[in-house]
Amino acid sequence: MTYTPPVAEQRFVLEHVVGIADLAADARYEAAAPDMVEAILDGAGAFAAGEYAPLNRIGDTVGARWEDGRVMLPPGFREAYQAFVAGGWGSLAGPTAFGGQGLPYALAAAVMEDLGSANMGFSLVNMLTPGAIEALIAYGTDDQKAKWLPKLVSGEWTGTMNLTEPQAGSDVGALRTGATRAADGGWRIKGTKIYITFGEHDLADNILHLVLARTPGAPAGTRGISLFLVPRLRDDGTANDVRCVSIEHKLGIHASPTCVMSYGDHDDCHGELIGAEHGGIAAMFVMMNNARLNVGLQGVQIGERATQQAVAYAMDRVQSARAGGASRDPVAIIEHPDVRRMLLRMKALTQGARALVYYAIGQLDRAHLGDAAARDRVDLLTPLAKSWGTDAGCEIASLGVQVHGGMGFIEETGAAQHYRDIRIAPIYEGTNGIQAADLVGRKLALGGGAPFDALIADMQRDAENESLSRLIGDCAEVGRHLAAAGADDRLAGSMPFLTMLAVAVAGWQMERQGRIAATAEGDPAFLSMKRAAADYFVRHIVPEAAGLKSAALDGAGLLYAVEAGAFLA
Amino acid sequence: MTYTPPVAEQRFVLEHVVGIADLAADARYEAAAPDMVEAILDGAGAFAAGEYAPLNRIGDTVGARWEDGRVMLPPGFREAYQAFVAGGWGSLAGPTAFGGQGLPYALAAAVMEDLGSANMGFSLVNMLTPGAIEALIAYGTDDQKAKWLPKLVSGEWTGTMNLTEPQAGSDVGALRTGATRAADGGWRIKGTKIYITFGEHDLADNILHLVLARTPGAPAGTRGISLFLVPRLRDDGTANDVRCVSIEHKLGIHASPTCVMSYGDHDDCHGELIGAEHGGIAAMFVMMNNARLNVGLQGVQIGERATQQAVAYAMDRVQSARAGGASRDPVAIIEHPDVRRMLLRMKALTQGARALVYYAIGQLDRAHLGDAAARDRVDLLTPLAKSWGTDAGCEIASLGVQVHGGMGFIEETGAAQHYRDIRIAPIYEGTNGIQAADLVGRKLALGGGAPFDALIADMQRDAENESLSRLIGDCAEVGRHLAAAGADDRLAGSMPFLTMLAVAVAGWQMERQGRIAATAEGDPAFLSMKRAAADYFVRHIVPEAAGLKSAALDGAGLLYAVEAGAFLA
Repeated sequence: MTYTPPVAEQRFVLEHVVGIADLAADARYEAAAPDMVEAILDGAGAFAAGEYAPLNRIGDTVGARWEDGRVMLPPGFREAYQAFVAGGWGSLAGPTAFGGQGLPYALAAAVMEDLGSANMGFSLVNMLTPGAIEALIAYGTDDQKAKWLPKLVSGEWTGTMNLTEPQAGSDVGALRTGATRAADGGWRIKGTKIYITFGEHDLADNILHLVLARTPGAPAGTRGISLFLVPRLRDDGTANDVRCVSIEHKLGIHASPTCVMSYGDHDDCHGELIGAEHGGIAAMFVMMNNARLNVGLQGVQIGERATQQAVAYAMDRVQSARAGGASRDPVAIIEHPDVRRMLLRMKALTQGARALVYYAIGQLDRAHLGDAAARDRVDLLTPLAKSWGTDAGCEIASLGVQVHGGMGFIEETGAAQHYRDIRIAPIYEGTNGIQAADLVGRKLALGGGAPFDALIADMQRDAENESLSRLIGDCAEVGRHLAAAGADDRLAGSMPFLTMLAVAVAGWQMERQGRIAATAEGDPAFLSMKRAAADYFVRHIVPEAAGLKSAALDGAGLLYAVEAGAFLA
Repeated sequence: MTYTPPVAEQRFVLEHVVGIADLAADARYEAAAPDMVEAILDGAGAFAAGEYAPLNRIGDTVGARWEDGRVMLPPGFREAYQAFVAGGWGSLAGPTAFGGQGLPYALAAAVMEDLGSANMGFSLVNMLTPGAIEALIAYGTDDQKAKWLPKLVSGEWTGTMNLTEPQAGSDVGALRTGATRAADGGWRIKGTKIYITFGEHDLADNILHLVLARTPGAPAGTRGISLFLVPRLRDDGTANDVRCVSIEHKLGIHASPTCVMSYGDHDDCHGELIGAEHGGIAAMFVMMNNARLNVGLQGVQIGERATQQAVAYAMDRVQSARAGGASRDPVAIIEHPDVRRMLLRMKALTQGARALVYYAIGQLDRAHLGDAAARDRVDLLTPLAKSWGTDAGCEIASLGVQVHGGMGFIEETGAAQHYRDIRIAPIYEGTNGIQAADLVGRKLALGGGAPFDALIADMQRDAENESLSRLIGDCAEVGRHLAAAGADDRLAGSMPFLTMLAVAVAGWQMERQGRIAATAEGDPAFLSMKRAAADYFVRHIVPEAAGLKSAALDGAGLLYAVEAGAFLA
């Protein structure tokens, strides 16, 4: 159950999918030189394997505990988190003006990948702070930036994202938490938020809550939402009027406290407005889009970890002779075709998800250099990365359980923990259904459809495999159809279409990598596996996605052919 | 989280998929008259909902506990089990000569479905006894039948199946448990068995263990295996030398104790040989095939339960206005297209799995009437029912979590329990990979391929939808290809082929039911949902399965393109 950082793979993806050399050619990212990339991959991998991975099982079995408003992580977590801060691992992509290292997000993503593979539940504390930083950079005043950013960037303080309320889940516009002006001119926050990841913990000295709330007389819905920063501790070090009233008992990620947060029980919860009043929804999307890419990356994280564990088991477990073989001696189960099929599928899905997510993050880095086409592309790809990345993670974890046979169902093995942990990822930060709606709604319509067309054209130019070309063509056809369809038909086909398009993009990047690997220099085992994974992806996973075309085009008629009540029959 | 027995659906499937009237026309099954069917469906449903369902959550949270060799179920379980025995629910399909009611298995399956939907973990105690009964009927002497069958048939005593040992999982021939003749002429058993479901419990007064063991000088492998009956209590009521040394800590089915059993610690474990020495493997298949159909049925059980729960939640949870609709009022989420897509998919997969499994069991009942073609067909369908039925169950449970959004990840909701419970089903009673191997090995070759050809011909005759016809044709092509292929290529394509063929059979039966529902009389809500589920299955799930053809035909070359060690790279 150890974790081995996939350094060769990460380096290959950064080089050939992200194009890190192009980024480093810009003055903003000049620090991302090859030796720095190497040092970060090696260092972060060793840190995650050495400090986070050993805490994965106790994180699951003991987990976060709530007591009288405080949340305690198991022994060792605070020390490991402090080592994370001391190592500067949180500040890689932070702005240099506030103590960050100004490196591309793609490099920070490799670090997050390592942390999450090592310990997904724990790593969530590292995952939401970057979104808070982004929101402050985008909407904070200079004073606010100077006051809050340095300790967020270093990781000394952590950030949270407070959107959801019991009646306001996917429909964030339905939130009721209120913010009112006090006599001193400051804001007072009052309300209850649920599902707040690491809303309370004992890892860091302060927690900055970014809270969506409604000011008096604000318009209904999302147009009336404002963003507030609510520190756990006020400037004078005294406790603010905010309290974690309980944590959830969950299927997985037990090390991540999922908090019910109560703001202003005593009408004295101080907050600062971030950005304009009623401008909260735009700030929320800044946080959310960052988080969505990071959640997609969680599919890669668990995919990698589950695959490593299944491969190790399959190389160790001896059972039955090879069918049709000359020898009757039992062999390691990795030698049996169907086991090997599962393992190659796990490799291909993990590498495919990694290619998709890192490619999207690489476009984000380009967007930060002012590349407008890259901005459009990352906007288009974000729902794909989040939704298909997490679906792939769930499938890989399930295959990991299956490879273990009966042992996979025994908790001590650890395969089941991955299966439980990753199941949250298709749900949070906008369910995968919400991602699909975002794709066929906002994202297909983006720029009058030009970003979608440009993506299709780029893929069609590169694709060599016939099934892949055909899938890309099908995506173009379905995308055009859905963009012109009515709301119900568009949404009815949204999820099958999202899967088709995500597999096309991942397949495009996998095929490209396979070609590069055929002539690249490096570890022959790594390069041959890259080619095999690319071939499997294009020859097996791509044709499966093509099977979704009928569903994507079928429209909503069938869905509403019966009354809702008939679902009870 | 209540359970509502799907009586209308069960009755429809028994009538139109099983053809229960044909069975009742034979003297052997004449008791299965319509009023009896009605009474059993109503009674078993009410019993399961009233007695088993309320124990589902305590079964999960408290579960079976081990203490000094004894296993205790939570409060209420013994009483509920005794009520099961008193109600005669275990004896439906048992032979009348030994106190059974001589009814078709298809009816007993409906009862098992209810019990498992209500409480999957608990219902496992009811699931293995029928296999023990079958093995005794097939291989026991008259004395053994008279001695053991009555209390097994009534359910007063329960049966277990002891195959697996640490080094002998899928490779059952590697088992080492020994059986030796004692001076008194009886057999003494010695060895350790693992993963023994309900190997020890406090629900019934005696447990009959059916144990595979090796006699002195027996040939290696499966040809040297013999079957023994080892009672927990000997005839004189004293304890036999058999002990549960621990139970597993599992991902799910916590109410089902998974035992490590130690036989003969004191060299005094008495057993009876069942059938011929070295004839154990045939007896094992009798038990196993029965169990495999019942495990496939577990996919239906959890599918039904998870669907009911998700539908109830989606009708209750109000969130967001309908996109593109005139009103901005929030609606129940079942009104949103993608949620409805998930719910219709759950309905279609559940009904499809039920159609496949009940159809197979109906063929088993026909086989018991001497129909040789039906015997071949159930043999061919058993791996499909087990493997695809359980895969469908896992997908449905996952969709159920997803429909609940954040609530799905909270354990108290109950959706997560279904997701955890069902994950064992693709593993036990022969992993789904073993089922696929059985399909492309033994089952395609059965009768020189005639049973496979007959199935294809029956399906082709009925199929009207173009995609379904094409999938059936693809199955015929792939089946012929794999039957002629070498072992590696055959096994490499085995799982994609199994999925294609299972979806074809389920699609065939769904399309048939959809046609019947169009003109049948009955509850309009039920009939319209049957048609919608049938349409969804044929128009969405069938084309997806067609996407597996390339994988099924691709051969093993890609799987072995890299050395096993490269999977670590």
